[in-house]
Amino acid sequence: MPSDSRATKERILRAAAREFAQFGLAGARVDRIAEAASANKRAIYSYFGNKDELFDIVLLDKLKLGTEAVPATWDDLPAYAGRLFDYFNDDPDRLRLNAWRQLERPLAVPHETEIFRAMLSKMHAARFPGETLPAPDLYAMIFALHHAWMLAPAALWEASGEDPSQPEVRARQREAAIEAVRRLMTPSVD
Amino acid sequence: MPSDSRATKERILRAAAREFAQFGLAGARVDRIAEAASANKRAIYSYFGNKDELFDIVLLDKLKLGTEAVPATWDDLPAYAGRLFDYFNDDPDRLRLNAWRQLERPLAVPHETEIFRAMLSKMHAARFPGETLPAPDLYAMIFALHHAWMLAPAALWEASGEDPSQPEVRARQREAAIEAVRRLMTPSVD
Repeated sequence: MPSDSRATKERILRAAAREFAQFGLAGARVDRIAEAASANKRAIYSYFGNKDELFDIVLLDKLKLGTEAVPATWDDLPAYAGRLFDYFNDDPDRLRLNAWRQLERPLAVPHETEIFRAMLSKMHAARFPGETLPAPDLYAMIFALHHAWMLAPAALWEASGEDPSQPEVRARQREAAIEAVRRLMTPSVD
Repeated sequence: MPSDSRATKERILRAAAREFAQFGLAGARVDRIAEAASANKRAIYSYFGNKDELFDIVLLDKLKLGTEAVPATWDDLPAYAGRLFDYFNDDPDRLRLNAWRQLERPLAVPHETEIFRAMLSKMHAARFPGETLPAPDLYAMIFALHHAWMLAPAALWEASGEDPSQPEVRARQREAAIEAVRRLMTPSVD
């Protein structure tokens, strides 16, 4: 691929990710993506297909970037949770994209199932001996914990009198996410 | 209020909740709500204000219905988690409304902060002696756990070979949510 078309494609993907994170799939506009990417709509359609297909490509791209940027440490899932917390909080668009996706286009995109199959077999092996919670449920719950502070209503923070944009509050939330995964991966004491 | 206008208001609220859950705030259309409620748009605007205001009213209404339908048992949060799991899974629109809200209109609605202030002080008291995790973080994480299966990508279920719409899979997820809250509310063993 000539480097100029590769650069155009990358600009389009970046602009599309920003547009989808902000407005979702139905609310996103291809002409705004074209403008932000200094490309034309025809180039977008010819490189990536229609808006739904572009959305799928952005999602799979984000998933691959995420798994590369934050490799899972299956022997230390609490530490992994801390790094994932940083990754998602450094760019809240990542969590927003996931949330729009579940609401507007929840079907699996090509190749995604293979990625999750590999993750599940590692999650299965990472469980403590005698663990009764199945790997998919553990995975879903650990994944949901990263969304916890995004999903918590603003009224919760107003009620607590805290400003979640303050670094010390964020640092404490990070510790809470790590500790939560530590507890989740430990047998409960009766 | 005459009973016919109360009935109209209730039909509008029900139709609006359905429309917002399906399409979100930006995607919702007041004329579809009017049609589904057998009301006219003018009645909607005069009873509830504009679309944003209607959205706020629907959210606060759902929050109040939820706290009435599933009273918190602060001395047994795992059991509470099980009942919340049922409540949300009996009508997935409830989780969808929350998710749209966080994406499109995250500000607190009037009276919401008071509701959360009461919940936080009870959560604070429900923690085990010596608990280091603050009440807002515990609340946010327990709340996020109810979203876990909604947020988990379809590819996770495809990879696991399970059909999450099957009653036995749902029953197992329910048990997982209960056990997760049990572990979360227990000091980790070192």
